[in-house]
Amino acid sequence: MALEVEVTFQPEGKRVRVKLGETLLEAAKHVGADLTSICGGERTCGKCRVIVERERENAGSIMDVERKFLSSEEIAAGYRLACCTQLRGNLTVRIPEESRTGRQRLQVEGIETPVKLEPLINKYFLRLSKPSLQDPKADFEKLLEELQSQYGLNDLEISFDVLRRLPIILRDGEWKVTVTTWRNDTIIGVEPGDTTRRIFGYAVDIGTTKLAGYLLDLTTGKVVAVDSLMNPQIPYGEDVITRITYATKGVKEQKDLQQVIVNGVNQLLKGLLEKTDVNPEEVYEVVAVGNTAMHHLFLNICPKFLALSPYPPAIKRGLDVNAEKIGIQINPNGNVHVLPVIAGFVGADAVAVILATEMYKRDELCMALDIGTNTEVFLGNKDGIFACSCASGPALEGARIKYGMRAASGAIERVKIDLNTLDVNYWTIDNDKPHGICGSAMVDILAEMLKAGIIDVSGVMNRDLASDRLRSGKAGLEFVLVWREEAATKEDIVFTQNDIKEIILAKSAIHTGTMTLMRKKGIVEADIDILFIAGAFGSYIDPENARIIGMYPEVPLEKVKIVGNAAGTGARMALVSSAARNTTEEISKKVKYVELAAEPNFQSEFLNSYFLPYADLSRYPQTSELLKKLGRYPKRPPVYFPSKT
Amino acid sequence: MALEVEVTFQPEGKRVRVKLGETLLEAAKHVGADLTSICGGERTCGKCRVIVERERENAGSIMDVERKFLSSEEIAAGYRLACCTQLRGNLTVRIPEESRTGRQRLQVEGIETPVKLEPLINKYFLRLSKPSLQDPKADFEKLLEELQSQYGLNDLEISFDVLRRLPIILRDGEWKVTVTTWRNDTIIGVEPGDTTRRIFGYAVDIGTTKLAGYLLDLTTGKVVAVDSLMNPQIPYGEDVITRITYATKGVKEQKDLQQVIVNGVNQLLKGLLEKTDVNPEEVYEVVAVGNTAMHHLFLNICPKFLALSPYPPAIKRGLDVNAEKIGIQINPNGNVHVLPVIAGFVGADAVAVILATEMYKRDELCMALDIGTNTEVFLGNKDGIFACSCASGPALEGARIKYGMRAASGAIERVKIDLNTLDVNYWTIDNDKPHGICGSAMVDILAEMLKAGIIDVSGVMNRDLASDRLRSGKAGLEFVLVWREEAATKEDIVFTQNDIKEIILAKSAIHTGTMTLMRKKGIVEADIDILFIAGAFGSYIDPENARIIGMYPEVPLEKVKIVGNAAGTGARMALVSSAARNTTEEISKKVKYVELAAEPNFQSEFLNSYFLPYADLSRYPQTSELLKKLGRYPKRPPVYFPSKT
Repeated sequence: MALEVEVTFQPEGKRVRVKLGETLLEAAKHVGADLTSICGGERTCGKCRVIVERERENAGSIMDVERKFLSSEEIAAGYRLACCTQLRGNLTVRIPEESRTGRQRLQVEGIETPVKLEPLINKYFLRLSKPSLQDPKADFEKLLEELQSQYGLNDLEISFDVLRRLPIILRDGEWKVTVTTWRNDTIIGVEPGDTTRRIFGYAVDIGTTKLAGYLLDLTTGKVVAVDSLMNPQIPYGEDVITRITYATKGVKEQKDLQQVIVNGVNQLLKGLLEKTDVNPEEVYEVVAVGNTAMHHLFLNICPKFLALSPYPPAIKRGLDVNAEKIGIQINPNGNVHVLPVIAGFVGADAVAVILATEMYKRDELCMALDIGTNTEVFLGNKDGIFACSCASGPALEGARIKYGMRAASGAIERVKIDLNTLDVNYWTIDNDKPHGICGSAMVDILAEMLKAGIIDVSGVMNRDLASDRLRSGKAGLEFVLVWREEAATKEDIVFTQNDIKEIILAKSAIHTGTMTLMRKKGIVEADIDILFIAGAFGSYIDPENARIIGMYPEVPLEKVKIVGNAAGTGARMALVSSAARNTTEEISKKVKYVELAAEPNFQSEFLNSYFLPYADLSRYPQTSELLKKLGRYPKRPPVYFPSKT
Repeated sequence: MALEVEVTFQPEGKRVRVKLGETLLEAAKHVGADLTSICGGERTCGKCRVIVERERENAGSIMDVERKFLSSEEIAAGYRLACCTQLRGNLTVRIPEESRTGRQRLQVEGIETPVKLEPLINKYFLRLSKPSLQDPKADFEKLLEELQSQYGLNDLEISFDVLRRLPIILRDGEWKVTVTTWRNDTIIGVEPGDTTRRIFGYAVDIGTTKLAGYLLDLTTGKVVAVDSLMNPQIPYGEDVITRITYATKGVKEQKDLQQVIVNGVNQLLKGLLEKTDVNPEEVYEVVAVGNTAMHHLFLNICPKFLALSPYPPAIKRGLDVNAEKIGIQINPNGNVHVLPVIAGFVGADAVAVILATEMYKRDELCMALDIGTNTEVFLGNKDGIFACSCASGPALEGARIKYGMRAASGAIERVKIDLNTLDVNYWTIDNDKPHGICGSAMVDILAEMLKAGIIDVSGVMNRDLASDRLRSGKAGLEFVLVWREEAATKEDIVFTQNDIKEIILAKSAIHTGTMTLMRKKGIVEADIDILFIAGAFGSYIDPENARIIGMYPEVPLEKVKIVGNAAGTGARMALVSSAARNTTEEISKKVKYVELAAEPNFQSEFLNSYFLPYADLSRYPQTSELLKKLGRYPKRPPVYFPSKT
């Protein structure tokens, strides 16, 4: 038997016993400690900072890679990277605020799109006659006859576990029972008495970062409770590729990742049930959405090839799985429906967004953007929809940005730069002292810098600028957003030339997608009737600034419609309406996936998109006008690579 | 923690640790020792005799009930009833030959009824194209497209566990794979390479006493191995009512009985696989038949109400259950199909018999009898079939008969009495020294005694008979079949007046069924074109003697067709032919069950049937002729109760 050591994580006080020689990050995963790790233990992100308070000798020696991310003062103060700390004995560590993910802002609200209430779960109250020697009918066949004669339901199947107890249930209920059906073709429950008013369902959006859960009363279609939770897979890696890599290590690892997410989905539901006094047995169906990687990991389907070109999913169509089989703690005979996906990088959440925005049946030409580490772009209407996925990367989530962080307390979320004085106004989440910069502020920073002339249209800082905020740092020019006196970190919070490059890369990826789809569809920006902005991230971005930097195509602001967590909306619709659920299959089949990397103009388009807002400024007349007015319009036009046909 | 003691069962040498205070019978159940118990521990049958060899003090004191079944010599020799022996310490006991069931004659052969080979399991070999950026189709959808284009199969489902591994399997097989389908609508397997020639199925007849198993090659429809096994539920009670009573004690007990029978079904299969070098993964479907109690217990469906009037089953129709779900060790995604039942006492085995005899589609009017503790009677043809179940009781299996035993080695199976000298000729199974009398001999004994004038048509022994074989015993008159010098038991083997009564009761129950169905159908014996005799028991009964005592209706012997284990035949047919399987559902629906106890003439008919062969001798003209010739025809006609209409 391997020797074990005990680790305690403060301030949560979580304790866990792990094998000698495992890393602190692994220990944190085992116990579910709230510790960020963007790279998932690859030792490349430097975000899993912890403070070893005592028994430092049990933490092993400092690795070279740690010196890249930690200052010598920090090392002296006991800072370590959890991924580099191999346990040599019992240890107590503190997870500092900046390494925690727990207090992150999680958006659950989305547009409301009305649907007709026709859930797949129904209940029927029955009064049955007792069997007699003259009529010794089998219990199940008796039930079927009555369902036929009283409710016109024909030839239903029955869950095996219900059948097993059926004789007892019928007699316990003195032949008055309530039958629960799924799709009106399978009996998934029989219980004594009349319980027809108690039918609940659970819609859950499994995001890479967060879970959003909705408990619905299926007799009314109304939401009765809402909550959210950080995705407990985060310690295994912030982005999907890292998690897929982890899951691909072996059957156990794949199963572990499933277990973690299933636990999270259960934990979220538990909270919803406690709020509302609903019994888990009264929840009969779950509709889950998520990107294709979350979809595969949730169902324990081999995700390996999602990370390898050409990224084929294992399955596209929607799936129904017995709740007990995957360990979801609702009625054990209940059903878990996972919406269909479109492609390896356009998942069930995308289908849900298209359902919620009703793009698929609109006359208006719509574009929808769901921005994240991967950004999905949809373009079309009832006549057809194109979709693509853009590798916008984790910069907007804070990775690779010097002072980048998630949208948690203390994150700068909005920035305004005085065009004359270059003074910086900023706003933080929860009005805390600033810790770092989250994605919405990064968009602001780029737009404001461009308007203020701190950068030009190619994102290069103007080193001739007379301001003490612009200075040379270790790795080139940097702009001071917050002076150390105001910062929670007691350091100047700066935005570097490299940070600018990362954000432009992200916006270029997105813009390459929007331009490619517009070309496929044979339209230009002016043809777009509605620009839907879905997802938590898009809800906090200033649309005008996003347009100025060319993250959004240039459409009038009144055409921009922020729809919040539309994936959650779509999941709720598919939960309460069988018609909506059928529509998701049509969406999955009909949306035409465009593989950007396979497009002939992919590279030239990416280069065109690297400019702010775009190499062909005629596509951004309003922004051009603004830049001219401010004197920031480029003297020489950017290099533009026309598309080959 | 409860104290434990160790018990060793000889001659098998099986050891088990059980709680102090448990009985030897319970210990035997735990370890699966080969020990008969007809009453299942109710202390009423006296059959679970064991010999305590050492440490007799650890066996507790003799109970009063044991003195009823054991002589004082036996008690002195260490004999005990296992059900009465409470463990007070470690114990070694010997199970004597007569208490063992292991060497019993088990019939597996049945008629062969040809069917068209169209199994529900099929395999398809596929060559797939690799995905590319131009065609990044989902794995499952790619598979479906090829199944459609190469084999015309549309829109299949896939077992969730297969889907989980699908991406790996496709790539391991380098895009050349074999797909296994069930009903051509569900994919239950995908494996690398071409395995289309390896498809096996398992038909199993779960009898109350024995299991008969058949391994079939589903590519040819041929049986590749056959075997049988005692039903390992026997230590829980020989008859179904005792087992139902046990299962009704609680959820655990019900589950226990399922586990035991599932283990038996697995053990039987394991032997078949070893004989034939077939891998369990290559067995994709099981078809199981059994009476309704076995059906419920095998599936862990609450059997309680099968034992309570009006005896309704939980379900009639056939059931498909995932093999892994009930623990059957074939391919884990394989299917277990249990044929439909007709009523609480007319089970899936009856449906299989009707399928195998093809009664349901014949022009000829057929009667079929499947004799056992419950005897099923079927009467009809393509125009309709009536069925009933007769409580013939366990006498024919040896219970309640002084020297009764099962058809194991040493059982007298055939008897001939010299009509003049009253000398007895007998034949034993395996030509062993006689231990006792099994059911087929009991039928002979009654017929021979009647012909020899030892009994009259009401079964009463002729006490005036001058023969030293007829004598007064403890409980009235008895007839010596075997003198102690020849007997293995060193006791005279006798047949008592009470034994005669028990056998007449059994035959009366059966005859009441045949008469009732004939009346329902509006026919008489002469209208019967074929009399099918199904089941192991019927295979060994002399049809003429069965007719003489009125166990069979009087039809010419050439119309009697012994079909052996027709239930096994029916199971095999349903395994290899989907048409046959569909037919079983029709049979289950169309056969009209007659509840004898609810029939107005039930009691009078039972009284009529108590005579040898029957109170209305005009229904047995041939037998009457024989009795007249032998001078045994009754001087006064028996009392006959005409049926009310």
